[in-house]
Amino acid sequence: MAASIALSGRGRGLSTPNPNVGCLIVRDGHVVGRGWTQKGGRPHAEAQALDQAMDRAAGATAYVTLEPCFHLSPRGPRCADLMARAGIARMVIALRDPDPRTDGQGAAWLRDRGVTVDMGLMADEAARAMAGFVLRQTLGRPHVTLKLGLSLDGRIALADGSSRWITGPDARAHAHMERARHDAILVGGGTLRADAPSLDVRLAGLADRSPRRVLLSRGDAPAGWTRIGAPEEIATLERVDHLLVEGGAETAAAFLRAGLVDRLLLYRAPIVIGSGLAGIGDIGLFDLADAHGRWRMTDMRQLGVDRLEVYEAVRNA
Amino acid sequence: MAASIALSGRGRGLSTPNPNVGCLIVRDGHVVGRGWTQKGGRPHAEAQALDQAMDRAAGATAYVTLEPCFHLSPRGPRCADLMARAGIARMVIALRDPDPRTDGQGAAWLRDRGVTVDMGLMADEAARAMAGFVLRQTLGRPHVTLKLGLSLDGRIALADGSSRWITGPDARAHAHMERARHDAILVGGGTLRADAPSLDVRLAGLADRSPRRVLLSRGDAPAGWTRIGAPEEIATLERVDHLLVEGGAETAAAFLRAGLVDRLLLYRAPIVIGSGLAGIGDIGLFDLADAHGRWRMTDMRQLGVDRLEVYEAVRNA
Repeated sequence: MAASIALSGRGRGLSTPNPNVGCLIVRDGHVVGRGWTQKGGRPHAEAQALDQAMDRAAGATAYVTLEPCFHLSPRGPRCADLMARAGIARMVIALRDPDPRTDGQGAAWLRDRGVTVDMGLMADEAARAMAGFVLRQTLGRPHVTLKLGLSLDGRIALADGSSRWITGPDARAHAHMERARHDAILVGGGTLRADAPSLDVRLAGLADRSPRRVLLSRGDAPAGWTRIGAPEEIATLERVDHLLVEGGAETAAAFLRAGLVDRLLLYRAPIVIGSGLAGIGDIGLFDLADAHGRWRMTDMRQLGVDRLEVYEAVRNA
Repeated sequence: MAASIALSGRGRGLSTPNPNVGCLIVRDGHVVGRGWTQKGGRPHAEAQALDQAMDRAAGATAYVTLEPCFHLSPRGPRCADLMARAGIARMVIALRDPDPRTDGQGAAWLRDRGVTVDMGLMADEAARAMAGFVLRQTLGRPHVTLKLGLSLDGRIALADGSSRWITGPDARAHAHMERARHDAILVGGGTLRADAPSLDVRLAGLADRSPRRVLLSRGDAPAGWTRIGAPEEIATLERVDHLLVEGGAETAAAFLRAGLVDRLLLYRAPIVIGSGLAGIGDIGLFDLADAHGRWRMTDMRQLGVDRLEVYEAVRNA
């Protein structure tokens, strides 16, 4: 299942409007098929894995990160049906599909056809890998990551605005990889005017993975940008399951104030800046007690001399 | 030697005007004596370890973090002499004594008396453990640690100044232990007026380890405080080898600007504050390139939900 979850990451930022599912088919201890949801959502991961497995799927076990779809679509076949027809003997499913058109029916349909179904293995990890899809289904909005490149003392630039470079090349390459994993990137009007960021993915072979660009502003958006007027309007962004917020301080604060940040991606450089620009503006905090228990570290790694710290919002705390 | 260095830590913050040395005497694979420089500098680590070893010192090996003293003092015997008389067969020394009154003469004197002497084992680690003494000898000033309790975004308080509590009980206990390892604590006039900090060690059994209090201010100091007018005046503080700077932002900036911070002790809470008070004021940085290569992480550990990050200044970078 861990391998299927890793495969699901390949579709992240590309697969909307469909979830970025991963699927692995194993027979007699050998992997006979691998798949992940392709660009634009089709083919589904299961269909791709079955294509590879061909007749070796008969009697095999499939590991899939999401319950196979059961609902009819003009865009392609139902995966539950495909799996049963191919003779899959056992389906191991991480996450039950929250989409009400499937929501357990895919699993039930497979069981009715004699397939052994186990659901729930590594469900938390799968939900994290498909976080945008899950939030779309449950809260009706994309998953939001706030990215900051910071000094030890929390500055993102000198007082004159210069921020080249706070972090080193390894951290910047990682940040570009993160861009490729998102459907859209958002910045505020101030950042657009000050930095005119291109927000593209500058990694060899991944230039075509550059996400769409969204502007948070009351004014007009340049050509090629989608504009929203408030953080809550992210719910209206079409085919955006994973949104990356890149700045600046007031935009970051607006999303935090609205409770619309699911993940913090902090690239921390081993430097001290002192007086300079803060990464996060006024989030409306009046009591320190309210600040606690909201963030849980989920990853930390060294990127050259810099350190990546990843925090996830604690829900229902 | 690692055990001797650990022992040396017990005298840190207490042993001035003498270095906080650690000593272990081993015979036939058994530890027969342990010592560290006692409060006020006497007895020396070697004398204490020899007292424990008694006649078992004959033919034994001594591991000591600093070259045994050779110079005559009205306050006690010369350790090199004590070692030779006790019949120590081999001396393993980490750091050559930079004090010009010894500076290799202790080792030479021991060799002349037939003691095998090995010098240099774990010298870097020993120098770190006795950093204050080494800086006193080489730069004529104490070793300075700057301590900050920070949010993820580098804030030390809300905009109204409230900072209870940013870090949790484990981090606070660790910070009190660090106080006990310093001869003196320094704060600025603003912090004194705003917080009236007691700066004592609130740990069971260590209350008598509370360091002396130093104020950086142009005004007068209250009773029980020593005042200095500029960071450079730390060189005049008597019997202070290890100084802990605890705040506030302008005091931290003044020490950083003067190049007088040797170690950063950052207690990082997993909270976001947004607009609030910064931990470090203007350090006179005009070019980001100048900020790089100055700090090297030497320790990181989890303290409850908080994280301790320790950085040391990179010299001659």
